[in-house]
Amino acid sequence: MTPPPAGKRGPGRRPGESGTRQAILDAARAQFAAHGWDRATIRAIASDAGVDPALVLHFFGSKALLFAAAMTWPFDTDAAVEEVLSGPRAQLGERLAAFFLSVWEDPERREPIMVMLRAATTNAQAAELLRETLMTVFLGPLGSRLEVPDPELRMSLCSAQLIGLGTARYIVAFEPLASLETERVVELVGPALQRYMTGEL
Amino acid sequence: MTPPPAGKRGPGRRPGESGTRQAILDAARAQFAAHGWDRATIRAIASDAGVDPALVLHFFGSKALLFAAAMTWPFDTDAAVEEVLSGPRAQLGERLAAFFLSVWEDPERREPIMVMLRAATTNAQAAELLRETLMTVFLGPLGSRLEVPDPELRMSLCSAQLIGLGTARYIVAFEPLASLETERVVELVGPALQRYMTGEL
Repeated sequence: MTPPPAGKRGPGRRPGESGTRQAILDAARAQFAAHGWDRATIRAIASDAGVDPALVLHFFGSKALLFAAAMTWPFDTDAAVEEVLSGPRAQLGERLAAFFLSVWEDPERREPIMVMLRAATTNAQAAELLRETLMTVFLGPLGSRLEVPDPELRMSLCSAQLIGLGTARYIVAFEPLASLETERVVELVGPALQRYMTGEL
Repeated sequence: MTPPPAGKRGPGRRPGESGTRQAILDAARAQFAAHGWDRATIRAIASDAGVDPALVLHFFGSKALLFAAAMTWPFDTDAAVEEVLSGPRAQLGERLAAFFLSVWEDPERREPIMVMLRAATTNAQAAELLRETLMTVFLGPLGSRLEVPDPELRMSLCSAQLIGLGTARYIVAFEPLASLETERVVELVGPALQRYMTGEL
């Protein structure tokens, strides 16, 4: 997601470095998924990757930047923006809800978002990463294409509704919301998103 | 919040037990607030309270039940239900939003909810506790007083909107939502809650 600082690459680069970087990223992904942000350690990641912890920090700078690099955003963000925008304007909210649910319904695509969300609830740096990433790659571009006043406000309201939907349906499992068909959830939540996106606020 | 299993009290009760219980609860509250659900340990709580870890488990049964007992729900739930219900029906959503924000705006009242939410994102047992508590003491009674069809569905939708609002405004800090006056947030989110509470779904 976030590339390492440019200064970390360069003429001093040794053969095999990209393999080492990849091994660290694979180990980080496994550790963050298994133990969450808090309990995953640079030491354990380095050990799994067969390198010294100092090398992990040399390559990635910090635990937060390693986390950002290891997390693969689980959808093509440009295509997602187009998917939400394509179709009747009155159904923007339903399409945003349907797209969001399509990601969360797939356990493999849901996992990286849940790891980021867990990390964000316990660590301010991880919260900043989640916010900046979501706004930079998806909500910001989507909002700017809506041609409405206050796109940032509208997108922050959509993010509140969507984060809450993900948490209540898939993590805390409030019923009957957790067991509904996705089509029904789209009907239920779409109008709230529609108002946030295009309504009078 | 949740009392210990009845069997843990009884004729064998020694003098000083209530003081010991209180010391454990105080230590638990401090540990959960400082380290979160994941990193707070029975061992550290017992150490802070000056007792053996086995005694903590004897009194409370498990980490989850200790957590539930240590967390003080940061508002009078019966009064909260009345506060939301009192007034014009068309402003139920705004009153629910205003009440929720009044709790989250106060760092001391927000903290126990954030600890529960953090715990819920990493632990299924903690998620169940959050869900059951919120439904039993607040959302369930509120929903049953609305005299609408599908009160559970409506309340689970409200919980999604409110959990997301709390997370987006106070934890992930999406802007401009995070910096708005509470009165403005009530205006923005109230209509979504109103529809979930009384609208055609």
